[in-house]
Amino acid sequence: MNVLEEEQTAFEIGVVVPKRNVKAEEDEEACDCVEFLVNEFRKVGLVVERVPGVVDEFIKLAAPLETLGRAAAELQIKKRTQIGMDLQFEWEEVDAFVRQPDGSLFSWCERFRCYRHLIYGIMNKRKSAVTLRFDGKEFYWEVGEHLLKKLESQRIVKEVFPLHDEVKRKKLLHTWALHWWDFTSQPIDEIYSYFGTKIAIYFAFLGMYTRWLLFPATFGLILQIFDFGSLQLLVLPLFFISITLWAIMFPQFWKRKNVALLARWHISYPIKTDLGNRQLGLAWSSPQSSVELMKKWGTDKTKEKEMFQRIEWFGRLMRFRNDAIIIVSIICLQLPFELAYAHLYEVIESDIVKFGLTTVYLFAIQFFTQLGGKISVKLIKYENNENTEKRADSLVYKVFGLYFMQSYIGIFYHALLHRNFLTLRTVLIQRLLVSEVLENLVENTLPYLKYSYKKFRVRSKKKREKGSSAGKIQFTSRVEKEYLKPSYSASIGVELEDGLFDDFLELALQFGMIMMFACALPPAFAFAALNNITEIRTDALKLLVMHKRPIPRVSTTIGAWSNIFQFLVVTSICTNCALLVWLYDQEGKWKIEPGLAAILVMEHVLLLIKFGFSRFVPEEPAWVRANRVKKATEAENMCSKQLLRNISGGERAVGASAVKKTE
Amino acid sequence: MNVLEEEQTAFEIGVVVPKRNVKAEEDEEACDCVEFLVNEFRKVGLVVERVPGVVDEFIKLAAPLETLGRAAAELQIKKRTQIGMDLQFEWEEVDAFVRQPDGSLFSWCERFRCYRHLIYGIMNKRKSAVTLRFDGKEFYWEVGEHLLKKLESQRIVKEVFPLHDEVKRKKLLHTWALHWWDFTSQPIDEIYSYFGTKIAIYFAFLGMYTRWLLFPATFGLILQIFDFGSLQLLVLPLFFISITLWAIMFPQFWKRKNVALLARWHISYPIKTDLGNRQLGLAWSSPQSSVELMKKWGTDKTKEKEMFQRIEWFGRLMRFRNDAIIIVSIICLQLPFELAYAHLYEVIESDIVKFGLTTVYLFAIQFFTQLGGKISVKLIKYENNENTEKRADSLVYKVFGLYFMQSYIGIFYHALLHRNFLTLRTVLIQRLLVSEVLENLVENTLPYLKYSYKKFRVRSKKKREKGSSAGKIQFTSRVEKEYLKPSYSASIGVELEDGLFDDFLELALQFGMIMMFACALPPAFAFAALNNITEIRTDALKLLVMHKRPIPRVSTTIGAWSNIFQFLVVTSICTNCALLVWLYDQEGKWKIEPGLAAILVMEHVLLLIKFGFSRFVPEEPAWVRANRVKKATEAENMCSKQLLRNISGGERAVGASAVKKTE
Repeated sequence: MNVLEEEQTAFEIGVVVPKRNVKAEEDEEACDCVEFLVNEFRKVGLVVERVPGVVDEFIKLAAPLETLGRAAAELQIKKRTQIGMDLQFEWEEVDAFVRQPDGSLFSWCERFRCYRHLIYGIMNKRKSAVTLRFDGKEFYWEVGEHLLKKLESQRIVKEVFPLHDEVKRKKLLHTWALHWWDFTSQPIDEIYSYFGTKIAIYFAFLGMYTRWLLFPATFGLILQIFDFGSLQLLVLPLFFISITLWAIMFPQFWKRKNVALLARWHISYPIKTDLGNRQLGLAWSSPQSSVELMKKWGTDKTKEKEMFQRIEWFGRLMRFRNDAIIIVSIICLQLPFELAYAHLYEVIESDIVKFGLTTVYLFAIQFFTQLGGKISVKLIKYENNENTEKRADSLVYKVFGLYFMQSYIGIFYHALLHRNFLTLRTVLIQRLLVSEVLENLVENTLPYLKYSYKKFRVRSKKKREKGSSAGKIQFTSRVEKEYLKPSYSASIGVELEDGLFDDFLELALQFGMIMMFACALPPAFAFAALNNITEIRTDALKLLVMHKRPIPRVSTTIGAWSNIFQFLVVTSICTNCALLVWLYDQEGKWKIEPGLAAILVMEHVLLLIKFGFSRFVPEEPAWVRANRVKKATEAENMCSKQLLRNISGGERAVGASAVKKTE
Repeated sequence: MNVLEEEQTAFEIGVVVPKRNVKAEEDEEACDCVEFLVNEFRKVGLVVERVPGVVDEFIKLAAPLETLGRAAAELQIKKRTQIGMDLQFEWEEVDAFVRQPDGSLFSWCERFRCYRHLIYGIMNKRKSAVTLRFDGKEFYWEVGEHLLKKLESQRIVKEVFPLHDEVKRKKLLHTWALHWWDFTSQPIDEIYSYFGTKIAIYFAFLGMYTRWLLFPATFGLILQIFDFGSLQLLVLPLFFISITLWAIMFPQFWKRKNVALLARWHISYPIKTDLGNRQLGLAWSSPQSSVELMKKWGTDKTKEKEMFQRIEWFGRLMRFRNDAIIIVSIICLQLPFELAYAHLYEVIESDIVKFGLTTVYLFAIQFFTQLGGKISVKLIKYENNENTEKRADSLVYKVFGLYFMQSYIGIFYHALLHRNFLTLRTVLIQRLLVSEVLENLVENTLPYLKYSYKKFRVRSKKKREKGSSAGKIQFTSRVEKEYLKPSYSASIGVELEDGLFDDFLELALQFGMIMMFACALPPAFAFAALNNITEIRTDALKLLVMHKRPIPRVSTTIGAWSNIFQFLVVTSICTNCALLVWLYDQEGKWKIEPGLAAILVMEHVLLLIKFGFSRFVPEEPAWVRANRVKKATEAENMCSKQLLRNISGGERAVGASAVKKTE
């Protein structure tokens, strides 16, 4: 019954509009479209605060709980109820729903969805078009048109972005980013309620990975420090076996942890969310083909079944084709390029030429990666992935292929050419140090530089307008500073991914580097562990200080990255075996006949197909699933309200009886 | 509303009691316990028919739909409703539930459960014990005691068994067992409604497997018939790759087919049935520890969580220990024994000694297998498997290990020793022919011999009683003949499995034989396909004619056998590679250094652990699942009735409006 006690007053959304010219302000106060927009916001039930900035004006929005609740009911958001079922939200039966760990009714993801619905849902329901004016320009808000879309197309609304909540941000800064002592513990629940599921899952993963890394780090350091003498050749395979077992166990235990976290946050287990996710997908996502098909599902069952099967297999074929295109182009275009660079680097003796070569190479791969990302995004458009998160996963797989080649092929080349552990080690150490340190530096300075540059531009623009007025312009309002901060976006495929892509990529590349060459450089684990401890802090700082508050994503797992980690484990088993062979066969006496090698390769390929095939073809045919989903939706629509009344009624009854007892 | 139209009059359960002595009959008609039992059956609502036999008397039971419905409601059976949700059955809301494909309300599994509940649920609810007499013997039916258990312990009720339904049996005999033309099509829906899920799933699997076999059979025959000349060495790897791909695709497509079948029969998809199955398990299954734990789940969450985790890991440890015991004993005891036999068989030259040796060997393995089965059943008791089907699966894995060694180690030995494809082929052909033909013969003659022997014993017993009266005694009643037929039981571990075990075992051993040595004997696939086409018919005949009607099982998948098939596929990839190496390396020039071999073995073992580990540790921790299950149960208990009323109410409303329209 404590609904009314909790009042949502923090401003969570910012809308940026240009500042009006002073002279225009006097003329046409009445029909000014910013004023009009603010009024519309108020009508919807939002709390509005206008903040004038240096160049732009900012409209800060907050929503009372009831406004959010009504929006959630309109959006038919599914929420966990007290009885553990996910039911459509109804504002009247608010007591039936489970609260978040921090006591609020809606999670940040849900709130953000509601805000978007409220803001972008403002539509002209009048009988005629409304005339709006801005800076002398005049335009019409047609009947049935969305106001915000119109204003965005007129470039009056420059951006809509989520605002940081100062109280919570400061608290997190204190308990998380600047909390150095217990180095792998993080306030995951608070991160979840501030940033949403996806980011909290990332940090939980990073924390667990770092904690787990301590075991191989210790083992690796022992191997490095102590000299086992004649046992050395026995200890290394032992190390290999134990870290492989470690790496096999880690992804599975992570999944268990993930499920446990979701249970704590009252989010449905992924198995069932194929239904939920589709509806929850990011607000940007266009209506899905499969959803539309679901509606068409008619009475003629066999025909429908055939159609579903056709679509299912066509989608699979497209996916297969796309993956084949990517893989073939990586092997045919990128592999020779990388090998050429590695070879040239070995052959050339002049240091200056080497430096020049590396510079050219760095620019070239930058260009290639961007190109690859763009091609991937285009290809993905033809796949019928269920939701935005699935599409993002598809992108991750494709782009990771590029990075995989780019990061490891050089090292493979060195390992193959030299067959020497010492050279391999130096190359690895260089790579690890350079990539990790450089990445951390870039990651943290680039946003700051961007921020400074933006500030500078705004200042110079203002100065130009005002003429050369005196003094430095100060940014007084916090919302304006936030607006100038860069958004948390991916370096590649920004349409589908956000900054987490780069963070995960960094982790995966590091994991691959230390696992695949574990036998060559055991202490790498210790280095990785150290690096990750700082990574937790720097990533936290980046999110809390450097960037705008990121848009929350609904994904409940680490998605494609889990499979990538598992792929790296399998690869590492093979590469480490090769390393061991080279180590024990220092005289190069061991020979493998080409026929035998061919058969071995064939065997490995077939084994991998065997274990990969179940991913390619799911157990549940599309038409069965579509039918199940449709039935489940029907059932929920039918009984949702009734059940809710039952649940909250039951609670009330319990409450009433409790009251009676106390009497 | 057509509930009353459908009247369940077929007699489906038979109860066997001894015939009374003629003189006793006159004295004490009133308190005779058979008469009493029949009256109690009538009181419960069953339709009873008494059939006198040669030695015993038979009570045939049928149940009107309403009696079954009330029993189902008492048992809280979950049934699929019109809206696609599984809800507890309520007799009042019968219209809300989906009908079976054959139009009846309950499936044979459900009916059988209800029958058992009705028959075994008869309890003395009077205030005092009842005196019962039989053949002069007198005993008391105490208050709160179950009547049938009492009578069984007094050896008055000899057996309770399901009866064949003559009409349906004849129809199936015609459309299925003796339907020779379209050789892989079977009336699966009718099999399902007559025998229940598990047997229908077996035949669906067998049919699909046979249909799929046609492709490698054709390929294998082509390889056998045509001579490719110099291309021969290229064709064989091609054959290997294509049949491996075939074998990789088959289990996955089977799973899809399985899911599609379950959808057609309105049975929940396996993922969700971990909740349902536990309650539906065979009537014999004792209450499970995890169920009890579920009830204790209290308020102290963290403590409960810890307890659950302890139990989960302890169970896993026990399972691991048991599997380790079995594997170690197979390797340490069975492997040397099998190798010794194979070696002796090679070394001995006298045919008579060989024959003697084989006889001894056959008896010895018979004994070993029985022993292994018994040990496995004992070990399984210490595992906390969720339900009877899971326990049966655990047995299947363990016992299959025994059979695997027994069937293949000899062939491996021959292959290794001879390194000659021709010898290997002859051994394989012998094995295939002997095992398949022999098994089919034994499978079909043994039940008949058992039946004849039982008949003979009954006749001689009767003759002894009557003195040497004239003429052969005829078994006139069908129920008596059925009683004398052997039950459909497994050759091993009868506590947990039924005759399907032997049928699946035969299939799996055949699959292993043809897959693992595919490169040595390509035409084996054609032989297997032929064999399976007859197998479908002979198995059908066996079930319909030779045996008692089997007790229906609730399992909805082929369970452990799916994993065994997949394991065989993986093994076959490795063995075929070895065969290919031997084929191409006929001069024995290819050498593998021991170090390299060790590393390769280590790599393969690690890869297998990698792919097997996710089976060992599930993604969802036990406490999360327990919580989910508990919540779901609560939710269903809470709203089940309400929802049902909604559904059937909704239907009635639709019906009413339809009536109005027609007016």
